[in-house]
Amino acid sequence: MISFASDYIAGAHPQVLKRLVETNLEPLPGYGEDPYCAAAKEKIRAACGCPQAQVELLTGGTQTNQIVISTLLRDHEGVVAAKTGHVSTHEAGAVEHAGHKVLELPQTGGKLRADTLREYIESFYGDENHEHMVFPGMVYISHPTEFGTLYTKAELEELAKVCRSCSMPLYLDGARLGYGLMSGESDLTLEDIARLCDVFYIGGTKVGALCGEAVVFTRNNRPAHFVNAIKKRGALLAKGRLLGVQFDALFTDGLYFELSRHAMEMARELKALFHEKGVKFYLESPTNQQFVILSSDRIEELKQNVTFSFWEKYDARHTVIRFCTSWSTTPEDLAYLRSVL
Amino acid sequence: MISFASDYIAGAHPQVLKRLVETNLEPLPGYGEDPYCAAAKEKIRAACGCPQAQVELLTGGTQTNQIVISTLLRDHEGVVAAKTGHVSTHEAGAVEHAGHKVLELPQTGGKLRADTLREYIESFYGDENHEHMVFPGMVYISHPTEFGTLYTKAELEELAKVCRSCSMPLYLDGARLGYGLMSGESDLTLEDIARLCDVFYIGGTKVGALCGEAVVFTRNNRPAHFVNAIKKRGALLAKGRLLGVQFDALFTDGLYFELSRHAMEMARELKALFHEKGVKFYLESPTNQQFVILSSDRIEELKQNVTFSFWEKYDARHTVIRFCTSWSTTPEDLAYLRSVL
Amino acid sequence: MISFASDYIAGAHPQVLKRLVETNLEPLPGYGEDPYCAAAKEKIRAACGCPQAQVELLTGGTQTNQIVISTLLRDHEGVVAAKTGHVSTHEAGAVEHAGHKVLELPQTGGKLRADTLREYIESFYGDENHEHMVFPGMVYISHPTEFGTLYTKAELEELAKVCRSCSMPLYLDGARLGYGLMSGESDLTLEDIARLCDVFYIGGTKVGALCGEAVVFTRNNRPAHFVNAIKKRGALLAKGRLLGVQFDALFTDGLYFELSRHAMEMARELKALFHEKGVKFYLESPTNQQFVILSSDRIEELKQNVTFSFWEKYDARHTVIRFCTSWSTTPEDLAYLRSVL
Amino acid sequence: MISFASDYIAGAHPQVLKRLVETNLEPLPGYGEDPYCAAAKEKIRAACGCPQAQVELLTGGTQTNQIVISTLLRDHEGVVAAKTGHVSTHEAGAVEHAGHKVLELPQTGGKLRADTLREYIESFYGDENHEHMVFPGMVYISHPTEFGTLYTKAELEELAKVCRSCSMPLYLDGARLGYGLMSGESDLTLEDIARLCDVFYIGGTKVGALCGEAVVFTRNNRPAHFVNAIKKRGALLAKGRLLGVQFDALFTDGLYFELSRHAMEMARELKALFHEKGVKFYLESPTNQQFVILSSDRIEELKQNVTFSFWEKYDARHTVIRFCTSWSTTPEDLAYLRSVL
Repeated sequence: MISFASDYIAGAHPQVLKRLVETNLEPLPGYGEDPYCAAAKEKIRAACGCPQAQVELLTGGTQTNQIVISTLLRDHEGVVAAKTGHVSTHEAGAVEHAGHKVLELPQTGGKLRADTLREYIESFYGDENHEHMVFPGMVYISHPTEFGTLYTKAELEELAKVCRSCSMPLYLDGARLGYGLMSGESDLTLEDIARLCDVFYIGGTKVGALCGEAVVFTRNNRPAHFVNAIKKRGALLAKGRLLGVQFDALFTDGLYFELSRHAMEMARELKALFHEKGVKFYLESPTNQQFVILSSDRIEELKQNVTFSFWEKYDARHTVIRFCTSWSTTPEDLAYLRSVL
Repeated sequence: MISFASDYIAGAHPQVLKRLVETNLEPLPGYGEDPYCAAAKEKIRAACGCPQAQVELLTGGTQTNQIVISTLLRDHEGVVAAKTGHVSTHEAGAVEHAGHKVLELPQTGGKLRADTLREYIESFYGDENHEHMVFPGMVYISHPTEFGTLYTKAELEELAKVCRSCSMPLYLDGARLGYGLMSGESDLTLEDIARLCDVFYIGGTKVGALCGEAVVFTRNNRPAHFVNAIKKRGALLAKGRLLGVQFDALFTDGLYFELSRHAMEMARELKALFHEKGVKFYLESPTNQQFVILSSDRIEELKQNVTFSFWEKYDARHTVIRFCTSWSTTPEDLAYLRSVL
Repeated sequence: MISFASDYIAGAHPQVLKRLVETNLEPLPGYGEDPYCAAAKEKIRAACGCPQAQVELLTGGTQTNQIVISTLLRDHEGVVAAKTGHVSTHEAGAVEHAGHKVLELPQTGGKLRADTLREYIESFYGDENHEHMVFPGMVYISHPTEFGTLYTKAELEELAKVCRSCSMPLYLDGARLGYGLMSGESDLTLEDIARLCDVFYIGGTKVGALCGEAVVFTRNNRPAHFVNAIKKRGALLAKGRLLGVQFDALFTDGLYFELSRHAMEMARELKALFHEKGVKFYLESPTNQQFVILSSDRIEELKQNVTFSFWEKYDARHTVIRFCTSWSTTPEDLAYLRSVL
Repeated sequence: MISFASDYIAGAHPQVLKRLVETNLEPLPGYGEDPYCAAAKEKIRAACGCPQAQVELLTGGTQTNQIVISTLLRDHEGVVAAKTGHVSTHEAGAVEHAGHKVLELPQTGGKLRADTLREYIESFYGDENHEHMVFPGMVYISHPTEFGTLYTKAELEELAKVCRSCSMPLYLDGARLGYGLMSGESDLTLEDIARLCDVFYIGGTKVGALCGEAVVFTRNNRPAHFVNAIKKRGALLAKGRLLGVQFDALFTDGLYFELSRHAMEMARELKALFHEKGVKFYLESPTNQQFVILSSDRIEELKQNVTFSFWEKYDARHTVIRFCTSWSTTPEDLAYLRSVL
């Protein structure tokens, strides 16, 4: 069945898979010590315009968030995030499992505003009892956010300024980073992100890879013995080549950006299609996730023909559902959706 | 360069990779809910002769050990293991990171003997202060062990008996299980293992897959909400298909056993070659890892031509090194080794 | 200087201290195995009208919350609490340090309303992605709350009903329980609390003891090997007598209730004094904590003569401060306060 | 009944208790901010001859070990200890519960030898796979040890040298430190210990206090935000005065040393008594714990009259039992023992 259920419905981009096939029988060292990992890291540094960056390859998003956050936080600290942040809601408490609190702040369209953060910090340090509280130790944002929205360059600069002013690392979860960068409605480049964030990750799982996220530490701030930290958290792949070969392919000849651009074209057509059909938007995002409101009857009917995902109840008779495009969405998928909507 | 460095030097067995390619663009649900995962689990249950088994697919060995052990142990318990067990030594403290002690017992050729275990248990409960100590809560063994040795059926039955007598689950780490089963010197079948162990895993990473381990709970003893446990430990793959397709391929038409058998043939030839060349064995194992002793000079020379791995210092002038065969070892590899040894 | 800074400014009630002196040189077994612990537990069971209750003595409030919550929750669960709950704010992230999320809900006057809880639970299980979220596993309330407010019997019954309906233990933090029970504005008895809660603690540190909290498990639900759980969390006193003797004294001849009643009389006089002096209330609580608003100038002046505690900024020129009475407050203290206010 | 069961059978030394009574009604700030804590810390610094030391007061030994070790270790590190160390055996896995491995080394009379440590360190860093192992991050020793034995000054200097050479803090568990210092067979002073160790604690619970251990950080190496670390581990007493007043009393006019000297006199008489009666020693320690071997019959008989503690089975018909003296042991206790032995 045609599916818009998520941006991870297909395997890897064919060019990525091709490279896995081509390199399959080469004998290589394990644990990320192979030349493909090295090449991938070098290409990512170049794409970020950040030659001194330290790049590490991990397998999935929750894993990446858990490892980055738990190794960067100090004992007395928690991570600040929007209440709707992925780490706050849909990671089964992975950060708390690692011993740290997620300090949840109000959000605006899925985003954490710099003034919300600033007021919270001031209030925290103004509280005479704060030594008995969890200290804000780093800031987590997702870009695109869980609602598909995007920070502007000005917003990210403002957030980074607040973070720097109190020596908190700013961490950007880029599970869908490619789709954000290629959105057309974003004024942020990958170089901007590398310049403004202390650490971020470039999502592979949702953007062309079978699995894999590339963490970029931009300030020579990778925790010491990071390989050991990954290993003790059960996240070190014996065949690190699986990640190295994929990211090497994604960052060769701009494939990562090209496939992201395709997904965004499909997203724009999807939006146009919803407008054309008079479907009501819950949230008309500038990226690859579109949230629309349909009646329960309509949803039941549509389910017979295409796959999408439940988001939340809207009212007694309506539900918010999410449609995703991705690198694997085709014009034919959209034509089919038009025919059944 | 020709490599005997480990049993994870190559990618996936070609037949496994072929299935990844063939299924690549099918839209599938995430998180292990796809039909390939279901098929793989069904085939594994059949191969184990254990229709009621609960099978879960994870990504790597340390991850699997950490998740299985930390979800099966209760608050007051630790895991008993041989001092040379993988969880005791080479997993960067992953079990302790999850909050539990590894209770290390003496080993015999890498194996935990039933009487060693029995004496320890008796001594533990005979100690009037044991309520202030870590309770033995489960037993970890690896098969093949870290030295490539194998439990006999009688030994495993004896261990299982001690475990049952004090209600401790017996957990078998089968990172190299295929090589053990096909060793020719083993009287244990996969059915025996499923019958005697409460939980075990069938290693994929070292036996034909890019990554992946299949955990088998044999007593309807999978921890509740296991998907949540995997997620909160950062180990849930969005594209669970990556594991499902691979294990489905490995357990179709006996591929897992066939490629293991090939690795064992290569191992026997490797042993013969060492004998022929008068190389001294440190440990002549019945499986795919062979440990030999060479002088430092000889090692330096050999390094120019083939890759192998450091094991431990033997004396001032000699070192123990390890050679592995695997599904990817070829007769040509061995011929080359003969020519340079 | 006269102090209203907290309800733990003095040592132990003289009768409690007297018993520590009288029993000081008796040789006793350690770790809570002494007859005073046994007697204290028996008297507490009687006071609760709950002969089958399991009573455990711990040292402090945060410790008690951390141990009770982390031993009762299962792997996939977090604890639900009001956003202003002590575990949510002023325990330095002790629950998260133990690996579990505090699921923070909106509060009403410091209390968690049954309908707020019910809506949250319904919304949680109505979310199709809830297997990737932290499950609500128990409910934490404080009584009196952090604002000195009290649950009515009807409110507690309603909360207990919601908890029972989804098999979540209801846990009541009674750090100041005596003051709540003797408030005069409460219709809840200790028996009611034992009947409605699955577990609660009777605070000693703030109510007459040097240290100590008595945890009451009312449903035969004390976690297995609880002594081991206490020990491994660093909370087992070698000289358990320190807790046993104190709670034995507090629950002999109703001392706990009598000294609480005294504190509440002092609280009523304190409130009357504030009214008399025209001091503006921030929150006129029915218990021993009173929150008033004073100008910064007035606060500076008052600080020269009495001690109280900062609560929060009210506006640019005013601050909320807290005055506590306790078993150690005397009429002379109040007379002095009258003279300087 | 007369008891030699442990060194924590009585409450506090009468002089300590007297000070608790005298200061009981003084209103004081909480959480260790009171003047008695300040005075105690100052006196301890003076006794250690270490004016720059940072002193922190905690409640019990396991708690202290857990907090000191878990806040000083880094993510990739474990603590090295003798296999018989208290942290290795009788703390219910408190260090592992905090996420770190206890790296157990062989012991000699309960002591960790410098050469054992050195060989282990060399072997660790000589292992090419050590990045996948738990790094030795600090060294734990107890003095007196669990067997009542003592390090000589030369031995401690040698250990400290190995630790310094690889930048590992040396941590000394002084649960019974007073008894070691006053043993008469020790050439180590408190100043020596402060000079050689990076952190150690002076035990109060077993040496005159109701509870309490004083941690001394000697190198300006107290972890940042240590109060927060204590709080989040559930170990911060609201009434910190309980510890402050006791340690202030213990370090006023040399009380700590005087009562320790008394315990050691009693220990010498106890040893003489065993010799006189022909009782066989398992371990004739230079401190306050004496381990003797008695037949099961004799033990049953003796149990009717005095209390002592089980240590371990010796053979089928004999058991090792432990007798402790302490500050509370009297000549009358010994006379009674003579009459029944």
